[in-house]
Amino acid sequence: MLTEMIRLYEDREDVTLTTYVIAEKGEMHVQGKRPAVLICPGGGYFNCSDREAEPVALKFASMGYHAFVLRYSTYTQGKEGMPDISRAIDPNPQTQYPAPVREIGKAMLLIRERSEEWAVDMDRVAVCGFSAGAHNTAMYGVYWDKPLITDYLNTEKEMIRPAALILGYTLSDYIYMREATLENPMDVQFFQASNTAFLGEAEPDEKTLKSVSPARLVTENTPPAYLWATSEDTMVPVQHSIRMAHALADHKVPFEMHIFEKGPHGLSVSTQASAVAKSQIYPDAAKWVELAECWLAKRFALDLPEKTSFEEMLEKGEFPGA
Amino acid sequence: MLTEMIRLYEDREDVTLTTYVIAEKGEMHVQGKRPAVLICPGGGYFNCSDREAEPVALKFASMGYHAFVLRYSTYTQGKEGMPDISRAIDPNPQTQYPAPVREIGKAMLLIRERSEEWAVDMDRVAVCGFSAGAHNTAMYGVYWDKPLITDYLNTEKEMIRPAALILGYTLSDYIYMREATLENPMDVQFFQASNTAFLGEAEPDEKTLKSVSPARLVTENTPPAYLWATSEDTMVPVQHSIRMAHALADHKVPFEMHIFEKGPHGLSVSTQASAVAKSQIYPDAAKWVELAECWLAKRFALDLPEKTSFEEMLEKGEFPGA
Repeated sequence: MLTEMIRLYEDREDVTLTTYVIAEKGEMHVQGKRPAVLICPGGGYFNCSDREAEPVALKFASMGYHAFVLRYSTYTQGKEGMPDISRAIDPNPQTQYPAPVREIGKAMLLIRERSEEWAVDMDRVAVCGFSAGAHNTAMYGVYWDKPLITDYLNTEKEMIRPAALILGYTLSDYIYMREATLENPMDVQFFQASNTAFLGEAEPDEKTLKSVSPARLVTENTPPAYLWATSEDTMVPVQHSIRMAHALADHKVPFEMHIFEKGPHGLSVSTQASAVAKSQIYPDAAKWVELAECWLAKRFALDLPEKTSFEEMLEKGEFPGA
Repeated sequence: MLTEMIRLYEDREDVTLTTYVIAEKGEMHVQGKRPAVLICPGGGYFNCSDREAEPVALKFASMGYHAFVLRYSTYTQGKEGMPDISRAIDPNPQTQYPAPVREIGKAMLLIRERSEEWAVDMDRVAVCGFSAGAHNTAMYGVYWDKPLITDYLNTEKEMIRPAALILGYTLSDYIYMREATLENPMDVQFFQASNTAFLGEAEPDEKTLKSVSPARLVTENTPPAYLWATSEDTMVPVQHSIRMAHALADHKVPFEMHIFEKGPHGLSVSTQASAVAKSQIYPDAAKWVELAECWLAKRFALDLPEKTSFEEMLEKGEFPGA
């Protein structure tokens, strides 16, 4: 396994791509190029959660796919913990939208540059995110072919096309969110801070909110998607996943969705591998990983021959090594 | 993830420990020291199969355990492929028994030396092997506390105690094997070559065969074990797993065994992650991984608090970051 942390901007430490590239060694070499999953951890655009980084990468790597963790621009720029959001926070123009979504495209180009060395099948790169990282992923799903990204990167859209999206407890509709959070003062405080972090202002106008609501921007160019969430999530209500699924259905984009009844926000892989407390382990919700493996296999399965060369020798009556 | 290949002998390239150490970064740091699984690939003591190395390590790492792959001494000394076994092969004294089993102890000491740096819980290190690697693992299970290993390493046995064994389609009884292989000339040829590779002679005497038959050497000091195999394995008959289980039961050593009906020898993780052909993918047998995860959790579960610090703050009515 080739593990390497690569800066996306030479002069910044906070925006990085960490590789989990499966080493093409010896007899495994015949597997050839393999698909990859690019992972965007969540963290409310304040930070990138380590709980939604390496543990997720290892799940996809254990399925036979290369994995990459993208730590995109967030408010705290890689510092641990949250800013003090008990009062209004100042904007951080360097990290706010559209930097995070453009960085997914930047990461796609970086992977493409090294795809021969790493044996990546660039036609099959999925983007996977959680919470705000899922929002960033869904945003990429609706903007990857638009000038917002292609002009900025000065690239043809086919160079950065995502093959699939995987969205864990996603945010998808900022207009719905504004309405839904009015009831709880603590939610208002949290999302005003998150809006300042992500959009540079605590109460953006309707047009801005719509422009960052992937559930309202799905087109037939949005890639196939796998969504999962828990219905009792109080931080990002499950309606965000449902609204995204509704939009995908409306545009006939293939998708799969699993909503588990139990479990709080931020479960990541929902086992001890990503938990810092037992309250983050939900065996039912953990099934999202194997369900995603089955879903991915429909489009991402490795191209393997029917039989091994050993079996072919045996059939011909030749001894191994003879 | 810290990936590093470390030589066990300074002057030899062929015997190595490859680390898949989970990086203790940021918020994950509170997980503290974690258990580990040391993996011995199979390969008939001719080589170490790459198919039973990294793909297996990634499965255990994705469960939240550190993983290590031990490439122990084998006949070809790291060269790819098999020797020509259509005629008798010459012995290779440098790589034959007891080098392979001693090297597991050597690897345990190496991991112990760096256990602070890597955050390894040395009381919970399992050894996992496949085929000949499972045999080597089972041998370690019955010899780890004996002078064969402790004198050679000049160590107290408690320094190298394995907490558990995981045995995939193991060999366990060389006396039974000699009887069972008499029927098929190709098997005779293969196992005579394998005996030469492992023991330095094609037809070892009864005493030697018994001394390398863990199913005949189990004691109450043999660690708890998890065994799995397929009943239609024609290369290493399932009777080897059954005989090992019988011996564990006789000595009241806790164990679990799963025998799947279908599937050939050498399935490794039995998915595309370890397959070089579709004939090596058996979804039923692939369940051994999650069954092993459940079994390991009984003794290897991470020590996590009940609640996160965020949850505790919420309960006290404090805002995050305030």
